[in-house]
Amino acid sequence: MPDRTLTDLHHVVVVGAGFGGLQTVHDLAGAPVRITMVDRRNHHLFQPLLYQVATASLATSEIAWPIRHLLRNRREVTTLLATVTGIDKAARHVLLDDGATLVYDSLVIATGARHAYFGHDDWEPFAPGLKTLEDATTIRRRILRAFEEAERETDPERRRALMTFIVIGGGPTGVELAGTIAELAHLTLVGDFRNVDSRTTRVILIEAGPRLLPAFTEDISLYAQHTLEKLGVEISLGQPVTECTATGVVRGGEKIAASTMVWAAGVQASPAAEWVGIAADRAGRAMVEPDLTAPGHPEIFIIGDTAAITAPDGRPVPGIAPAAKQQGRYVAAEIRARLRGRSTGAPFRYRHAGSLATIGKSKAVIDFGRFTLRGPIAWWIWGLAHIYFLIGVRNRLSVALSWLWNYLRDQRSSRLITQGLGERTVRLPPNGSSDHAPP
Amino acid sequence: MPDRTLTDLHHVVVVGAGFGGLQTVHDLAGAPVRITMVDRRNHHLFQPLLYQVATASLATSEIAWPIRHLLRNRREVTTLLATVTGIDKAARHVLLDDGATLVYDSLVIATGARHAYFGHDDWEPFAPGLKTLEDATTIRRRILRAFEEAERETDPERRRALMTFIVIGGGPTGVELAGTIAELAHLTLVGDFRNVDSRTTRVILIEAGPRLLPAFTEDISLYAQHTLEKLGVEISLGQPVTECTATGVVRGGEKIAASTMVWAAGVQASPAAEWVGIAADRAGRAMVEPDLTAPGHPEIFIIGDTAAITAPDGRPVPGIAPAAKQQGRYVAAEIRARLRGRSTGAPFRYRHAGSLATIGKSKAVIDFGRFTLRGPIAWWIWGLAHIYFLIGVRNRLSVALSWLWNYLRDQRSSRLITQGLGERTVRLPPNGSSDHAPP
Repeated sequence: MPDRTLTDLHHVVVVGAGFGGLQTVHDLAGAPVRITMVDRRNHHLFQPLLYQVATASLATSEIAWPIRHLLRNRREVTTLLATVTGIDKAARHVLLDDGATLVYDSLVIATGARHAYFGHDDWEPFAPGLKTLEDATTIRRRILRAFEEAERETDPERRRALMTFIVIGGGPTGVELAGTIAELAHLTLVGDFRNVDSRTTRVILIEAGPRLLPAFTEDISLYAQHTLEKLGVEISLGQPVTECTATGVVRGGEKIAASTMVWAAGVQASPAAEWVGIAADRAGRAMVEPDLTAPGHPEIFIIGDTAAITAPDGRPVPGIAPAAKQQGRYVAAEIRARLRGRSTGAPFRYRHAGSLATIGKSKAVIDFGRFTLRGPIAWWIWGLAHIYFLIGVRNRLSVALSWLWNYLRDQRSSRLITQGLGERTVRLPPNGSSDHAPP
Repeated sequence: MPDRTLTDLHHVVVVGAGFGGLQTVHDLAGAPVRITMVDRRNHHLFQPLLYQVATASLATSEIAWPIRHLLRNRREVTTLLATVTGIDKAARHVLLDDGATLVYDSLVIATGARHAYFGHDDWEPFAPGLKTLEDATTIRRRILRAFEEAERETDPERRRALMTFIVIGGGPTGVELAGTIAELAHLTLVGDFRNVDSRTTRVILIEAGPRLLPAFTEDISLYAQHTLEKLGVEISLGQPVTECTATGVVRGGEKIAASTMVWAAGVQASPAAEWVGIAADRAGRAMVEPDLTAPGHPEIFIIGDTAAITAPDGRPVPGIAPAAKQQGRYVAAEIRARLRGRSTGAPFRYRHAGSLATIGKSKAVIDFGRFTLRGPIAWWIWGLAHIYFLIGVRNRLSVALSWLWNYLRDQRSSRLITQGLGERTVRLPPNGSSDHAPP
């Protein structure tokens, strides 16, 4: 095997090929190390655009790339499709699902986060979250299926429920989902149905806090709210969802009947803190040292959504791609420095470049801190920035093409209901055995 | 509802939105009818390119389109996502899964075929066939997963089995699958792995008959065989598979160890003949009258892969898209004629335009009957023809882009393992708990 000669080199094991993990490997290029990248999936996912897969705008393959292909030219990097089951700090072992182990000199844990239901895990089947490609295709299937079932439904009440979509959580993901679902109903699907009018669809965005996009400035929150309302999204603020079932949600004591709910309300870090046996915050993120290492274990780095760390301004570092990348860059530099025998010891300092969110067609908001941008210009910047950050010329072309079509024709390129055929079945009332054809 | 005024019109129910069903609806444009299109999926599938989804060359959304969107401008057409459970000929009812019924004046059954295991249905879990998008993503997942597991496998024998792929059936689909899997291994994946060399992959194509592509001329069969052999495909002729398990197949008394098998050996028509209660041939295709109607029921047409009919030359009409489209055209014309009170009564006459099959990059065969074409020119014609027949400018651009990349870079745009995470797990031998990193 080509890297047999590498075995006496410092072995860096990176767990997780998200933005943080890939950046670490990228910045270790040329360093005297051998690297093993472990991920339970074969692809790196461009999560910022995942909501567009969930709303049929993009295909799964447009925002995901095989990890080992991204790293193919790095001969010193071995990529493994495997699930980590635990870590033996004493022996410096990463334990894998098949019983095998990886012996590390330095360990970088960048395993990200899943969505959290704040102790209501029983809600997940009714209101799936959006973190993986499977999540996205599940949500896409449910949204598209709801319209299909509404077209067949003869009972007006159930038809109304089928055409009601509830997005729980008013952060960027929730705002983006609500906006695109509204556009899907009010633009894309118009004219496709005979028995229902997709323009009568209700899209309800429920945020427990006082305003949308809490991470942004107040006026941006207001702008987002007005823009969404213009798109026909009903916005509910200040009241949490207290119940979530197959038939809808309860908010402020009031039951809202709906057949499709999406969860965008919170995240739970992966169990890295458990693996390493250190303290975690409420979201399960590991309380790391200022240099992103596990207390008492300088050879273990924890970065990205899995780590709890505060920015110089005292605010927590947000769980966004740029933050994870900065941490990956920092860790790679620190490992290089140590190999040269002089660790910098300087703490990680997060620099916030800005916050972006898009609100449907031609509308977006950007908060650069110093100043803010909104409207079409922000939207174009958002689009170009995301295309720029996509990996590979091919994907940039492909996504640009999909967006162009979406923009010019208000069409979606991936309106497919796949998997889970008949996952949900329409039950008609006794009198339901009537001719579906127009009366 | 817009079509309330249509209710006293002749009601045509079309079951199945494949090539035949869509062509029927297309050619009924402007006729004094109202149409209900029923399909259990929300998308029309361009099956001729399905093998490219299974081999990661194309994305699912590039070869499938929402049926109701294709028919959106036909106000007289209602599209229903529903599964047909039976037909009441006396009452002229189509029975749907939700208990509802559709009352028809004319019925067109174009429900296609599934793959058949010739009484060995227990083989299906080990050697899935290729008819739906789900089939394609399942096969894609198994192929890509096999390489991932081989990279982790320490036992040489099992590693060999993981890197052995068996395609059962030497028709166009089998030839196309074997060729693309070989290219995937010998071109696309080269350099992506550290512990295995994808170029050592074995691809075995097993055909029970005496030659590949039996529907083509003998010299084309030989050409296909030599081309595949150049690509590194091992070809086995004249012996059927007699056993198929999770660990491989038995052919000619010899066991071939493999972890990934694909079935391309035969099809079984959908149960239309059963529904209508008429005779069927061995493949389950309904024995229809020369005018494609069910014996004794001139108001019921059965077309495409679901119907057994012979061409003027006495040979059976092949189960290919052009045949289904010709039948759809014929049925639409016949219904129009009847509505004008004068049925032509002329039997359906199949005109064979030609047979195409592609054998890996820059190699294809075309049999126009009068003459045959092979090699790069045939391949370009094949490619252009397929892009031409794709529905929608956007999909043509998208597929052209994917193919261009595939052609120039030998890369695949959809190398994603999705769904069924951990569907198969690698079991390592006792000594397997060794460090995965190079020894």
